[in-house]
Amino acid sequence: MTHTLILLRHGQSEWNEKNLFTGWVDVRLTETGKAEAKRGGELLREQGVLPDILHTSVLSRAIQTADIALDAADRLWIPVTRSWRLNERHYGALQGKDKAQIRDEFGEEQFMTWRRSFDVPPPAIDPGNEYAQTDDPRYVGIDGELPQTESLKLVIDRLLPYWEAEIVPDLRSGKTVMVAAHGNSLRALVKHLDGISDDDIAGLNIPTGIPLVYELDDDMRPTGPGRYLDPEAAAAGAAAVAAQGKK
Amino acid sequence: MTHTLILLRHGQSEWNEKNLFTGWVDVRLTETGKAEAKRGGELLREQGVLPDILHTSVLSRAIQTADIALDAADRLWIPVTRSWRLNERHYGALQGKDKAQIRDEFGEEQFMTWRRSFDVPPPAIDPGNEYAQTDDPRYVGIDGELPQTESLKLVIDRLLPYWEAEIVPDLRSGKTVMVAAHGNSLRALVKHLDGISDDDIAGLNIPTGIPLVYELDDDMRPTGPGRYLDPEAAAAGAAAVAAQGKK
Repeated sequence: MTHTLILLRHGQSEWNEKNLFTGWVDVRLTETGKAEAKRGGELLREQGVLPDILHTSVLSRAIQTADIALDAADRLWIPVTRSWRLNERHYGALQGKDKAQIRDEFGEEQFMTWRRSFDVPPPAIDPGNEYAQTDDPRYVGIDGELPQTESLKLVIDRLLPYWEAEIVPDLRSGKTVMVAAHGNSLRALVKHLDGISDDDIAGLNIPTGIPLVYELDDDMRPTGPGRYLDPEAAAAGAAAVAAQGKK
Repeated sequence: MTHTLILLRHGQSEWNEKNLFTGWVDVRLTETGKAEAKRGGELLREQGVLPDILHTSVLSRAIQTADIALDAADRLWIPVTRSWRLNERHYGALQGKDKAQIRDEFGEEQFMTWRRSFDVPPPAIDPGNEYAQTDDPRYVGIDGELPQTESLKLVIDRLLPYWEAEIVPDLRSGKTVMVAAHGNSLRALVKHLDGISDDDIAGLNIPTGIPLVYELDDDMRPTGPGRYLDPEAAAAGAAAVAAQGKK
């Protein structure tokens, strides 16, 4: 018996549209993003890949995506668990900054290092910055310090304990699990599942709104490549993500 | 220290609009119902009554109501638990039937007995009926038999164990708890909280979409009457509920 895992990256947010670094800033989906989520849920329903349980980040755009997709798939009623450990990468002092402007100001190399290097985090955000989450009630009681910036490596470090403690037990119990999250938290998970190297992960782009389905064996290793429920749209979407930050 | 409990009845559903008995049939909110939910969330935000944790039924109309209200209150990220024990009363063989037609066919007295008697359930639904939930995956693993009909008394019998085991511990931990549910599951809870007699509960109508806030002492008894966040709209709403079934 295999275990089914569905990964769903949120659709376009207000700041994707404006081409700003978002990270932990809690922006909402645009109408385009809502339409992507609905299409994602329709793909689940049409192809009979129906989640029994949901895990989301604590960021509204992932929660909205899950709610809309589950509504379309007639699965609003499934249990849900939320955790900051599934949040997008914290972009540090880049949060709220224009991507193209950062590219112009710091140059292509530094820009790509911050966006895609494995272990170089951007500069830390000042706790007094309007785009820091210093007094945000959803992070009260967070175990450890609130991150001020994160590399992909740091995302993996805080995500994998949640994967092991919360998601794997649901998979082992026979449930089909959906994870609704973000570009970088899902890249972190896919890197772990597919055993992608620290160098090669830079080239992986996950498209928005298209469910990515893994079948896992009892050791929680994929029995084959992850399968997008709309492969053609996924290829186009991954190319669009890769082009971000270009004018 | 008191404990804060917020009760929120879902807004207009597709079958409220059509004046059909709904019970466990999983109909969605109308646009009017969505607007009611949004207004409910705005009341929470404006008056600073912010839930830390959410409990819902497993029926989509209560879940949609909670999701929309929490979005308006900027609390989409709070933890949520869902249970069939918060579902609407199961209306048995009346599910899917027109309220006015039932009133005409069986007479005012029988109609009011089915709607408002404390312990007389409607006739049981046939498991093969299109409006039974016989093969609905959300009830797989339900402890005990799937109800085929319920009186308000039977609703209380299945709701109070959930109240004691799941909601009270959240309140005791200091969290502000929101319960998003239904006319009769919330009447059952209010009957318990306010110590309303089996006879008097017939006269209690809870309006839709308006948060009802209780402050509870350490014995989980209200320190005063429940408080609607929009008392004027609540009075009008309760009158509208009482008039249901009339042409």
